[in-house]
Amino acid sequence: MTLYEQFAQELKEQISQAYYPVGQKLPSIREMSKARGVSISTVQESYRLLEDAGFVRSKLKSGYYVQQPPSTAQLPETSQPEQRPVPIDNWQAVLELMMTESNSHFLALGRGSPDTELSSLKPLQRLLSDNIKYQSKQVFSCSKGNGLFKLRVQIARLMQNSGCHIHPDNIQITAGCQEALSLSLKALTQPGDIVAIDSPNFYGSMQAIQSNQLKVIEIPTHPETGISLPALELALEQWPIKVLQLIPTSNNPLGYVMPEKNKLKLLKMAEKYDFAIIEDDILGDGYYQTPRPRSLKSYDSQDRVLFCSSFSKTIAPGLRVGWVAPGRYGQMLTHLKFVTSLGANSLPLLAVADFIEQGHYEKHLRLAKQQYQARRDLMLHWVQRYFPSGSKMSFPKGGFFLWVELPESIDSLVLNENLKPFNIGIAAGSLFSAAGKYQNCLRISYANKPSERIEQAIKIVGEQAKILLQQALARA
Amino acid sequence: MTLYEQFAQELKEQISQAYYPVGQKLPSIREMSKARGVSISTVQESYRLLEDAGFVRSKLKSGYYVQQPPSTAQLPETSQPEQRPVPIDNWQAVLELMMTESNSHFLALGRGSPDTELSSLKPLQRLLSDNIKYQSKQVFSCSKGNGLFKLRVQIARLMQNSGCHIHPDNIQITAGCQEALSLSLKALTQPGDIVAIDSPNFYGSMQAIQSNQLKVIEIPTHPETGISLPALELALEQWPIKVLQLIPTSNNPLGYVMPEKNKLKLLKMAEKYDFAIIEDDILGDGYYQTPRPRSLKSYDSQDRVLFCSSFSKTIAPGLRVGWVAPGRYGQMLTHLKFVTSLGANSLPLLAVADFIEQGHYEKHLRLAKQQYQARRDLMLHWVQRYFPSGSKMSFPKGGFFLWVELPESIDSLVLNENLKPFNIGIAAGSLFSAAGKYQNCLRISYANKPSERIEQAIKIVGEQAKILLQQALARA
Repeated sequence: MTLYEQFAQELKEQISQAYYPVGQKLPSIREMSKARGVSISTVQESYRLLEDAGFVRSKLKSGYYVQQPPSTAQLPETSQPEQRPVPIDNWQAVLELMMTESNSHFLALGRGSPDTELSSLKPLQRLLSDNIKYQSKQVFSCSKGNGLFKLRVQIARLMQNSGCHIHPDNIQITAGCQEALSLSLKALTQPGDIVAIDSPNFYGSMQAIQSNQLKVIEIPTHPETGISLPALELALEQWPIKVLQLIPTSNNPLGYVMPEKNKLKLLKMAEKYDFAIIEDDILGDGYYQTPRPRSLKSYDSQDRVLFCSSFSKTIAPGLRVGWVAPGRYGQMLTHLKFVTSLGANSLPLLAVADFIEQGHYEKHLRLAKQQYQARRDLMLHWVQRYFPSGSKMSFPKGGFFLWVELPESIDSLVLNENLKPFNIGIAAGSLFSAAGKYQNCLRISYANKPSERIEQAIKIVGEQAKILLQQALARA
Repeated sequence: MTLYEQFAQELKEQISQAYYPVGQKLPSIREMSKARGVSISTVQESYRLLEDAGFVRSKLKSGYYVQQPPSTAQLPETSQPEQRPVPIDNWQAVLELMMTESNSHFLALGRGSPDTELSSLKPLQRLLSDNIKYQSKQVFSCSKGNGLFKLRVQIARLMQNSGCHIHPDNIQITAGCQEALSLSLKALTQPGDIVAIDSPNFYGSMQAIQSNQLKVIEIPTHPETGISLPALELALEQWPIKVLQLIPTSNNPLGYVMPEKNKLKLLKMAEKYDFAIIEDDILGDGYYQTPRPRSLKSYDSQDRVLFCSSFSKTIAPGLRVGWVAPGRYGQMLTHLKFVTSLGANSLPLLAVADFIEQGHYEKHLRLAKQQYQARRDLMLHWVQRYFPSGSKMSFPKGGFFLWVELPESIDSLVLNENLKPFNIGIAAGSLFSAAGKYQNCLRISYANKPSERIEQAIKIVGEQAKILLQQALARA
């Protein structure tokens, strides 16, 4: 072990013992060097190691801040979904989650909306108003075909950050990522076809799969590396899988990023077994570090990947501005967009194009990611503090969702029912499985500004989970 | 013949001879009575007859204005489409029409957008801006489930004008009428099913039918009374028709209103043959007279009618605010809306709700209808003046579309090609048929403010049509 590795280990222990508490700034490199009597370069290297290991994060021109260390909580195991195609039928539960909004009476901890009260969104309000004033003719017209050109130019530019070099004409604007996913599925499949997904998976995609009369096969997925490629290959050997739909970057709900080498392997597998891939990148730009990871699409030399995304989680869901880079399916997607909804509301397209072009998007993203990363650490801290021992949790690398695996005897649907009198809701794990698995899991969003109200709610969730656990033990 | 009938006949002749020119006000009832030496009540009754016959229209508190009399142009015959189910395949032509917009270089006479430069739309701009300023949290949130309640309340109120008494909870907000139609089709059919339509029909609906892998059977339709019920019954005897999709009020492209007695008969037929009806009412509120005609839905005691509409033609297409009153299919529609696009952009919903609630919608509609009716008369005048003799044309009772049947030897696709060097486009008739019928027909919009440029364009269309006619005669 080198000197700086030794020193990093020492600091790690001190962080775990809260000698340096979460959220606090570490001494500057110069201060630390002086205080501990080690060289500046040793401190530098050890801080870098700590950052790589997730114990601290650096803020530009400010220093290193302690964050919740990843290793203190146990990760969930690789998921074990049903290994055969199943129909999907949990619409009532999805509807309930969707319709319970946070307000002064109710706290919807499971909901998927980003924080739209960040100051960095202010310019967007101005741009919306300006476009109404100065572009009224365009605002009142429907944006048809593949959508507003100047927005497609900006999207093409943003996609370069994920390694994609796409011409604006090969982008189709959609009403959010959901329409992108839904139209892509429709373009690729016929009723009865089988679609593979990483599991747990976003309930909205699964409902789209169901409504297109497709069958779904859920592939085991690791909370840090994503879809299990051996398990996928096994499924491909057994079933005529037409499409793989997955969220490889800042996954919802698990928060992982699929390693680049796995992305490459996956594309080779797609070639071998000849299937198409729908890449849901909705939170790709929400990866905390810079640069963001490369997308599957960026490695896609065979035009098999339909890259779907939106600004619903990076700016605001109310805009309904999404897109798909559909590769060879471009004309089909333009047709499907037309028959589905004719075209788009022009106002948000105009305003979002201006927002990106004027540099507000990157500023906003920087602030939002910083906030979400800090909120993740605090949420991890609360969950570890208040949830029953034995709870496992994900360590999100982007986005704002935490996945918690409670002790096996706890049913999160029952837990959610028991939370209703407290005016608290969580997203039950079974929503994220076609076959109703993950009954002892739940998704919590940490998008909102931390508050005592949220901490109290997490405490109540933990207490109610403990009560269920005791009841189960008493029965056993 | 009574005295007032005689007097009305006399006035009709004088109008036809331009003794009273189009656009001019008739003498007041009192003046006319004095000038012609007939009683006030005779003048009153004869004016009423003239109005019923479409020779004059009354403006509130202003008097009677001469309009283009309907009888001077011959109506097209009842349409004669293919009498068997056919697939639909003219997407390229639809795409071309859709992507050619009017600008300073090109005049798209066939396009379907309303006039969004009317002064009565000004309050909407203010309401959009106000909502951005004061409702930013809601504007940034997606409107889920069946959509913004306060808008559904206003829509339910408006629907009373067509005789419908629907609870706001039985309304599903959609992204324009196209999404309403497309989701309704999806809720009602399985691939391979047969859908009947009135013919000619809106190309957008037909593309939706095609993309749902359905077959379509076009039913002969009269330019004044709409779908031929005997022809429909014949088709019902022969084919297992699952759904009838039609535009009974202010039809696009023919402009007719289906008589009430036919609406009642149609519903009886629906009961007898057990099919569902998709009623496209997009221009129902654009009927020139007040009150507007009752909708099919208003007679629907069996919950068979899915009433689809939007504000795309009555306010602005860029809003993408539509709805469906889906009767018994309510839950299915909410599910389909979710899987298709998750929810709606909240801003236009908020602003449109305010626009209606504050009385601006009714004011705007009044102005728009007045303008469109006057523009119809002028357009009829131009078409009669410049088009080849033997051209037949519709007499629209609402909306802003004119359907022209040219002499049989003229192919409107060729005509459209020949118009390109003049930077003019029309909507070729074959777009409005699944089987590519109506080749000698075209649709012209009179939504835009009349101008010398438009008159010149109509003149050029007429000249080019005459050239084609001469070429055909030379060949014969």
